[in-house]
This record gives sequence, structure tokens and C-alpha cells, in this order.
Amino acid sequence: MFLLDERLQADTIALGHFPLCQLLLMNDAHYPWFILVPQVQGVREIHDLSVDDQCRLLQESSTLSRILAERFRADKMNLAALGNIVPQLHIHHVVRYRTDAAWPNPVWGRLAAIPYTREQIAEIRRTLLPLLPQLTAFPA
Amino acid sequence: MFLLDERLQADTIALGHFPLCQLLLMNDAHYPWFILVPQVQGVREIHDLSVDDQCRLLQESSTLSRILAERFRADKMNLAALGNIVPQLHIHHVVRYRTDAAWPNPVWGRLAAIPYTREQIAEIRRTLLPLLPQLTAFPA
Repeated sequence: MFLLDERLQADTIALGHFPLCQLLLMNDAHYPWFILVPQVQGVREIHDLSVDDQCRLLQESSTLSRILAERFRADKMNLAALGNIVPQLHIHHVVRYRTDAAWPNPVWGRLAAIPYTREQIAEIRRTLLPLLPQLTAFPA
Repeated sequence: MFLLDERLQADTIALGHFPLCQLLLMNDAHYPWFILVPQVQGVREIHDLSVDDQCRLLQESSTLSRILAERFRADKMNLAALGNIVPQLHIHHVVRYRTDAAWPNPVWGRLAAIPYTREQIAEIRRTLLPLLPQLTAFPA
């Protein structure tokens, strides 16, 4: 059985799931920042997933990344699997702009999060989720 | 024709190449820190690679990551494709320890690099490269 890590639960809004991964929105309005979490219990590293799941992860990650880059007109996508604090495998997908508050540094540990308003979250659900093939959206 | 970015050339030691990617060693003895660079000119994002090259990258990345984790007894691998400063697509593979100087923060932009000695580089070549299947090592 898959259980989402408590820290991830606290810091994000769960938007839905792909065949392999849950899609989370980091509750930080500084940047459009999404997280994929493979729904496989106990895995910490990408290389510990089965080869089939690695391929699913790649496909879901690349599709998400391409659509985020277009929808949010990214200057650059930042992708990372770190996990120094939250051990459950999760892959960050952060839309970066040359004008954002942390540019050109990575986003982790730089700025206190600015929580989204309910309206902002609803807008992201409404405009982003229909663009994502294979996504099963969670109820708002 | 593929040309390695000048900043990557300056900051790293080129160890060899896999079928898709060059393997670089970041010249910073703080952490065992390796970089894969797909030898495809003009690509900035993983999702801009062809599907075949994405699969090659995944295979090379996961093999490298598993072997680095074992060889260097990692507490955690940190993988990232950032590219805010160096636009050429490159994927960081950083061996992290709970005792390293930046833990639990990411490594980017934290500490001035400590260059390796020639002996340290030779030792990494001698002990790591034979473990990597499909690697064509460059002359030392």
C-alpha cells in the first residue's frame, strides 16, 4: 500500500495521479512548482524502481515538464530528485524565470514559501489539469 | 557536431563517454559529483531529447547512480537537471553524506570548490571507471 509522506502532505496540494505517480503542487506561489511521487512504497532512489516503472516515470515526467514549460512559459525547467530531508522518492519540476526571486540559484532552502490562495489553486486546477493526458484529477 | 559547453569544460574533468552521454567529474572534492551530458547539440531540456535518447539517458543515469551509490557508500544520491547558468543539458549526480559540508541542503552555490589533486583524480579513474558498463574511458 502506498502512503504519501507526511511532510509532502503538509507542504503540497494533491492534484491527481498518473498511472505511476501522484501529482502534487508545492504550496509556494513564488514559482509554479510541481512534484511527482511514484506510488511505490519504500523507494528512495530512481534506480531502485523497476525498469518498467523507471520508463513510466520518465514518460510522465517529460510529458509534465513539456506541458508546464508551455503553459507557464518557462525560461527553464528545473528537475531534481534530492530527498535529503524527505526520504520518499519524489521528483521536483520547477518552472523557472530569469525574473524569479531565486534566479539563477536553485529554489530549495532559499525563500519562505508564500501559500497560494484558494482562488489561485482553483485556477491552476482549471487551466492545467485538462492539458495533462493520463491524469486522473482528485476532487478539489 | 557536439561541443561541450565552455563552463562545463572549465569546471570538470572529462572521464569518458557512454553511448549517449559524456561523463564528467566536477572538480570539487567536497562531494563525489558527476555530470552526464547528452552528446546532442543544442538541447536544453530532457523533454526536448528524442524518446530514444530519453530512454538512453535514463538507462545511463540509473546505471551510473546505482554504481556511484555503491562505490562511494552514499547516504543519498542527488540527481538534478537545472541549467539556469549553463544552458547545455547536463544532469548532476551527486553522492551525498549526512556528514558532508552542505547536508541537508543541495550542493549548488553553497561552497567554493576544492580542486582535486592529480592523485585523487587518478584514483577515481582507476577505481570507478572499470565498474561502468558501456563506458569508453578517455585517456588520462
